[in-house]
Amino acid sequence: SDVFAWPPLAEALLFFAARVDHLEKVIRPAIARGAWVICDRFSDSTRAYQAAAGGALNEAIEQLDAMCVGATQPDLTLILDLPLSQALPRRNGRPDARDVIEARGSDYHERVRQAFLDIARLHTERCVVLDASAPATDLSDVAMAAIETRLGLR
Amino acid sequence: SDVFAWPPLAEALLFFAARVDHLEKVIRPAIARGAWVICDRFSDSTRAYQAAAGGALNEAIEQLDAMCVGATQPDLTLILDLPLSQALPRRNGRPDARDVIEARGSDYHERVRQAFLDIARLHTERCVVLDASAPATDLSDVAMAAIETRLGLR
Repeated sequence: SDVFAWPPLAEALLFFAARVDHLEKVIRPAIARGAWVICDRFSDSTRAYQAAAGGALNEAIEQLDAMCVGATQPDLTLILDLPLSQALPRRNGRPDARDVIEARGSDYHERVRQAFLDIARLHTERCVVLDASAPATDLSDVAMAAIETRLGLR
Repeated sequence: SDVFAWPPLAEALLFFAARVDHLEKVIRPAIARGAWVICDRFSDSTRAYQAAAGGALNEAIEQLDAMCVGATQPDLTLILDLPLSQALPRRNGRPDARDVIEARGSDYHERVRQAFLDIARLHTERCVVLDASAPATDLSDVAMAAIETRLGLR
């Protein structure tokens, strides 16, 4: 059973509430002054965690994304992919390892991973999947290369 | 200035998150077993406080209501109306008088009141406005009469 007691739609609404706040206070002002914005997690995480893994909420989440994010869509999404067998030991070494979402079972996290990979296949124009089992410096090089290629810097 | 720092859309999303939870855990199970449900505040409060008073969010709030409340609409809505000059002294006697929404200024609360009265005019089929300046026992009698009349008990 799920230790996080909110219905999946309620959980999605909470994440979009935080996202609206973040967009209005941080992201849109930064874009307006010409800055680049790098964001750790965005609507794809809600799609993967709440829709694909938490219930049949796809249509509601797309409506919420249109309402809350609108035209402020990412130009590039990097997905750091790792098999669950390698991801779990890393996660368990982190101080936030036991939050209510991380505490969900392996089946849940496997569905989340597959949901991210499905999003990448559906949106090849903006998504790049990176092999997160590579050493950190190699992964960083590959990420930088993807950024430079996709955003037309090369 | 507004002491409640969330953007109006974020605030609306938070209220709908709570409403989804309430619907799923309390209201729909009660209706399913044939109970009557009396709810202190529902989507009309979000319409009045967040949309009419907090920004041009009408379309988003109607989308959220369709998404979250769906067919579980109230059969009858009682709106207890009081001029601000009488409402403020009552409110200030309550322990929750200083929450972030109550702390907003008189202009805000006047717009909220007008928004509720507009909703009542727009939805005469389910809304009844009651004069909350009446003594409590009289108000209770009028409320019971409205319930009996509108819900076909007489």
